[in-house]
Amino acid sequence: MYPSTRALAGEFLGSAGLAVVVIGSGIAAQSLSPGDTGLQLLENALATAFGLTVLILVFAPVSGAHFNPVVTVVDILLHRRSWATAASYLPAQIAGCITGAVLANLMFDAPAIAWSTTDRSAVNLLLSEVVATAGLITVIFALVRTGRSAWAAPAVGAYIGGAYFFTSSTSFANPAITIGRMFSDTFAGIAPASAPAFIGAQLVGAAIGLLVVRLLFPVAAPDPATAPTAATA
Amino acid sequence: MYPSTRALAGEFLGSAGLAVVVIGSGIAAQSLSPGDTGLQLLENALATAFGLTVLILVFAPVSGAHFNPVVTVVDILLHRRSWATAASYLPAQIAGCITGAVLANLMFDAPAIAWSTTDRSAVNLLLSEVVATAGLITVIFALVRTGRSAWAAPAVGAYIGGAYFFTSSTSFANPAITIGRMFSDTFAGIAPASAPAFIGAQLVGAAIGLLVVRLLFPVAAPDPATAPTAATA
Amino acid sequence: MYPSTRALAGEFLGSAGLAVVVIGSGIAAQSLSPGDTGLQLLENALATAFGLTVLILVFAPVSGAHFNPVVTVVDILLHRRSWATAASYLPAQIAGCITGAVLANLMFDAPAIAWSTTDRSAVNLLLSEVVATAGLITVIFALVRTGRSAWAAPAVGAYIGGAYFFTSSTSFANPAITIGRMFSDTFAGIAPASAPAFIGAQLVGAAIGLLVVRLLFPVAAPDPATAPTAATA
Amino acid sequence: MYPSTRALAGEFLGSAGLAVVVIGSGIAAQSLSPGDTGLQLLENALATAFGLTVLILVFAPVSGAHFNPVVTVVDILLHRRSWATAASYLPAQIAGCITGAVLANLMFDAPAIAWSTTDRSAVNLLLSEVVATAGLITVIFALVRTGRSAWAAPAVGAYIGGAYFFTSSTSFANPAITIGRMFSDTFAGIAPASAPAFIGAQLVGAAIGLLVVRLLFPVAAPDPATAPTAATA
Repeated sequence: MYPSTRALAGEFLGSAGLAVVVIGSGIAAQSLSPGDTGLQLLENALATAFGLTVLILVFAPVSGAHFNPVVTVVDILLHRRSWATAASYLPAQIAGCITGAVLANLMFDAPAIAWSTTDRSAVNLLLSEVVATAGLITVIFALVRTGRSAWAAPAVGAYIGGAYFFTSSTSFANPAITIGRMFSDTFAGIAPASAPAFIGAQLVGAAIGLLVVRLLFPVAAPDPATAPTAATA
Repeated sequence: MYPSTRALAGEFLGSAGLAVVVIGSGIAAQSLSPGDTGLQLLENALATAFGLTVLILVFAPVSGAHFNPVVTVVDILLHRRSWATAASYLPAQIAGCITGAVLANLMFDAPAIAWSTTDRSAVNLLLSEVVATAGLITVIFALVRTGRSAWAAPAVGAYIGGAYFFTSSTSFANPAITIGRMFSDTFAGIAPASAPAFIGAQLVGAAIGLLVVRLLFPVAAPDPATAPTAATA
Repeated sequence: MYPSTRALAGEFLGSAGLAVVVIGSGIAAQSLSPGDTGLQLLENALATAFGLTVLILVFAPVSGAHFNPVVTVVDILLHRRSWATAASYLPAQIAGCITGAVLANLMFDAPAIAWSTTDRSAVNLLLSEVVATAGLITVIFALVRTGRSAWAAPAVGAYIGGAYFFTSSTSFANPAITIGRMFSDTFAGIAPASAPAFIGAQLVGAAIGLLVVRLLFPVAAPDPATAPTAATA
Repeated sequence: MYPSTRALAGEFLGSAGLAVVVIGSGIAAQSLSPGDTGLQLLENALATAFGLTVLILVFAPVSGAHFNPVVTVVDILLHRRSWATAASYLPAQIAGCITGAVLANLMFDAPAIAWSTTDRSAVNLLLSEVVATAGLITVIFALVRTGRSAWAAPAVGAYIGGAYFFTSSTSFANPAITIGRMFSDTFAGIAPASAPAFIGAQLVGAAIGLLVVRLLFPVAAPDPATAPTAATA
């Protein structure tokens, strides 16, 4: 089954919203709290926790609210869904995150596109992305596979809000937002040269998360009404 | 059908409460954290997220808890309700927001009425109001049209709390509160000369939100018990 | 009907917990963030929002989790309950708040009892207490009288957390905690000379809240399992 | 009945996650907000509140999500369960917390293991641990014994997030995390010499909490699906 146009539109808009939230609040934080990196990250983290929760709540019945290639891929692997979903969802997610980055730049009167110059190449950051992504996958599919998909929106918002602080990489945990963040030379950006390793670490983390989910949540009982791929059924 | 006096009283009190929360916490933030605009906005955003959530929770069964002309108008357009609601709700919302502004001023020992001198006329702020309002309309009616009105209170609180940071305009997204904020020359204020363009941008955003809702949430299935206009039925 | 010993113990312990939360986090904030009154209040407000929510959640099935004389009295007036509840609840609330204040002092290595020297006598603070208490009463009984008592814990926590900022008095809204706060010469304290006017303003606010509840939430339909006075039935 | 390997794996992973959250966000806070202890604790507290809520949500159906020896022991005493649970859960919790501490150190490019040098031996800190642990036990088992286990995740997250501020010890309230925190010479650490007294105070607090639960929540009616030891049944 191929996802509907409506599902793809939802996934595109939600991913754009995610980039607006993450990058926009990063620019605001940088501008409002110059020199105070802790306060900047606190503002960025709270805005992201709030905004991501709302985005998942809104788009879950439309597209499943993945906004994240590794969520789509793990869902296919865990629940034997069609790869056709990945073929259309991944471009929608990436295009959405880039569009959102541009929109955030424009809202804050920055150049529409400016390659980020923030180097994020230290090895300990990559370890953080492994941990962050493994945790994200575990959170989402633990809830889905125990019939608690309705909790996913606040849980994922809280998880990412917390992970901004408990990892050293501020927990991108998402290849699409990693790509989108390359397009803004601001607080939340990542230099294009650092992105491939980040995405690689996220894939490793996703594989670990998949393993944890298979071992600890063996019974696949997705909640049909709100499961991540409800829209693709 | 005309709204009941009880519904209008609820809409007036709730709108007054919204202005008290937004403007009062803005004055407190400005006074308590002088010179630290990031911390000021963080205090203002958290107080607004908490307060708005509670106000919607309390007044939803009384008036639908719109507190916002564009919510009332979009609800009429989406659900073919009577324009009589708008004719009485809009004045109640505007009068409520002005009353709340005066009350906030008095609680903080400021002049009862002082025209704001905060210029908010940059074009990028108007783009932010378009985005903020389109998002707000999408959040509210996505939930209403998927039978999840009970989530609207925390979702709208979280949305606005996040949008204070992820937009550059601090997300007014509401013509009534825009008018109310003209009456306080403090942190959350807006100069009267800047208000018309803000309201224009909000109307554009509401139209975009209406379009998104029609396309992505085509089935109109408002939850009768808690839909925004339950009180006007 | 007289409240059970169990209900009184719950009301005492919960009121002590409230004073520990409010006064303890105030002392911590003052000590950790010297000179930054905005950050102090933010720390105090978040700790109070979190702690109060949990206390109401825990003690609601034991005593109704009033922790506040004006809640007890308004409940009696609205729902024609016995004044015997007030006769035992009010002393338990006051004794609990004083005990909690002493415990907070001891946890932070301050004198067990020290009369607060914080003058809070300005007229605009009293107006704030009227607004804060009217709002608190409205929030609680709006939820109770519309069968949504289960929302009271997070709603009251969020309301008070927000009201710390949107009122100028930091929203005591409770005669028992006002008395308890006299016993700690720290951030959250109030000089005994300022307390009577605060309590008077709270009574005025409670009366206004009672009126609003009667007018806007006319159908008395308390949720029997979780209504504030379930424990006294 | 002995806990399943799956339950032990869940308890180990959840405890590791708890240490990652607590210690990782502490290192981040210390590094991002140097010299501002209030802001550091605010960042640490919010990340912990968010992360702990999510961890309990995820692991509750696997292991009961104790992550804490005193929770396991009190559960056995209250509900007449087998001590075999303690014999395997406690080592899993302690090993998990140590593993998480090491992982947090590595994510932030600190030595994998460094004994903490933070002295926490003042008597008032021990009083705080008594209060914090008594409160934690009361919160958890009040909810379990009134059929509201589903609220435990957000309630415990909020409780600990608040208690970071309303106690002077920042509320460890958990012997396993106390041991784990010895392995990181950073913000959240505790010198090994201070740990035994902390754990002693936690045991005293647990005993008081057990007494409060027995007196105020006499009817043992754990919710079978989500009770802390569901996984061991």
